[in-house]
Amino acid sequence: MTSYAECPTKTVGAANGAEYAYRELGDGTVPLVLLQHFRGNLDYWDPPLIDALAARRRLVLFDNTGVGGSSGTTPSTIAQMAHDAIAFLDAMGVEEVDLLGFSIGSFVAQEIALIRPALVRAIVLASAAPKGAAGMHGWAPEVIDAVGKREPDPNGYLRVFFSPSEASQRAGLATLQRIFSRADPDVPTSWETRQHQYDAVLEWGEPNHALLQRLSAITQPVFVANGDSDPMILPRYSYLLAGLIPNASVKLYPDAAHGFLFQHHEEFAADVEAFLGKSSSTRDQINAPDGRSA
Amino acid sequence: MTSYAECPTKTVGAANGAEYAYRELGDGTVPLVLLQHFRGNLDYWDPPLIDALAARRRLVLFDNTGVGGSSGTTPSTIAQMAHDAIAFLDAMGVEEVDLLGFSIGSFVAQEIALIRPALVRAIVLASAAPKGAAGMHGWAPEVIDAVGKREPDPNGYLRVFFSPSEASQRAGLATLQRIFSRADPDVPTSWETRQHQYDAVLEWGEPNHALLQRLSAITQPVFVANGDSDPMILPRYSYLLAGLIPNASVKLYPDAAHGFLFQHHEEFAADVEAFLGKSSSTRDQINAPDGRSA
Repeated sequence: MTSYAECPTKTVGAANGAEYAYRELGDGTVPLVLLQHFRGNLDYWDPPLIDALAARRRLVLFDNTGVGGSSGTTPSTIAQMAHDAIAFLDAMGVEEVDLLGFSIGSFVAQEIALIRPALVRAIVLASAAPKGAAGMHGWAPEVIDAVGKREPDPNGYLRVFFSPSEASQRAGLATLQRIFSRADPDVPTSWETRQHQYDAVLEWGEPNHALLQRLSAITQPVFVANGDSDPMILPRYSYLLAGLIPNASVKLYPDAAHGFLFQHHEEFAADVEAFLGKSSSTRDQINAPDGRSA
Repeated sequence: MTSYAECPTKTVGAANGAEYAYRELGDGTVPLVLLQHFRGNLDYWDPPLIDALAARRRLVLFDNTGVGGSSGTTPSTIAQMAHDAIAFLDAMGVEEVDLLGFSIGSFVAQEIALIRPALVRAIVLASAAPKGAAGMHGWAPEVIDAVGKREPDPNGYLRVFFSPSEASQRAGLATLQRIFSRADPDVPTSWETRQHQYDAVLEWGEPNHALLQRLSAITQPVFVANGDSDPMILPRYSYLLAGLIPNASVKLYPDAAHGFLFQHHEEFAADVEAFLGKSSSTRDQINAPDGRSA
């Protein structure tokens, strides 16, 4: 199988007029669609994680509108990002997906599940928080200082995505080396993308306790995961998601921060695979007309 | 040290006119006060857990108003139970406590923390849920059938407080043997206590999303714990508490149900001790005028 490091970038035009850059690998009927973090493009998915996930299923990764190699203007709301992601999926001709949303990608995943639940089979929320949670109105000053500046640098990434321990920093350096060693890299994300995405983060983070109740309408099985010391989206928001989504499990990974899924890529890929395997067999059982497992 | 199994029952009269049955053991300045579960009296605290906790600190256990050996009428609201617990603590002359609330005792603990925060240093919530959470309006039919009948029996207790596994059921039998082998047992709880406590459970469980926001006002450090397969108070409510209380940690114990704290008494006592030790040293540090640890 092609490694994600060599997986070519393709494009598809959607009904909304945008041309989306995407990559796909692996085989399967219901693809796992990945939704990327703040300022990340296609390259910022660490290849060992993607390869481990693609060993068992079809994966679809894309730059949302205005991000990296995709055309258009990055929207300033998570809701519009969700509508755009749906437009991309419609253009790809997929009718059912599993979602893995990472950081602001987890916000988009929740929004998609609420806007078009029929599209979504199961959801992985990584380094996630619900809309309206108190204390989420913008990243902490040391976080936005580290990853929000005009010219992003490796030190800022390492400070937010990895814990201060030697082991975590070493894992972070390895991730960065893989991200930056790609032969045909994606287009870097723009300052406009940074600004509009952060506008969307702020709107998502306006404290509004009533909005938390939306989570009760996410009926899909959900796996919530984070590093135990994420400074960008605190682990308590993972508990909040798991407490309000009716059918959710939660796991915090040790000595890890925002990028726990890259640091613990083997363990996380195995956990995701176990979760998606269970979720799809449950759904097949429910859907099988004679009640037997399909 | 006296084991809890031989610890004598004493009484104290409170300003509200009630005569409270209580037991105390261990030494220390700030006592850990235990708040009991639905229909439980003083005997329903499994001695090995109590002995392990009392090895390092002063413990106070009591029957709340109308329960077991205490006089008066069991209140029909958690709020009144909290006021009565405060009256008992006032009668005992304690000015600061740690709380360990188990099941409906965890409801009372939250209410005390909100009514009189200055009294409470740190809180352990075992098999717990917040007021107003959806899905908590009464126990599930199989649970109330098992533990709500007029004459409680060991099988009902084993079905709710322990998981179906052989190991958990064996632990449950051992707990029951210890509970029922006391030489001078407490007065059994009455049918009126059962009815009024269940009225209070129903009121606590009226779904009201807005009420969940109360938890943001619990500023004490909180340790939330439950068995991973509690049928009475689902583990997701532990996540909900940990997601909404600003300073909370959470742990689910494996292959365990409502009575996880008896089944895993050694591990749970060690976790509680680590939590309370950390909480008290933090508070001492904050209170020390020169900023050094007291």
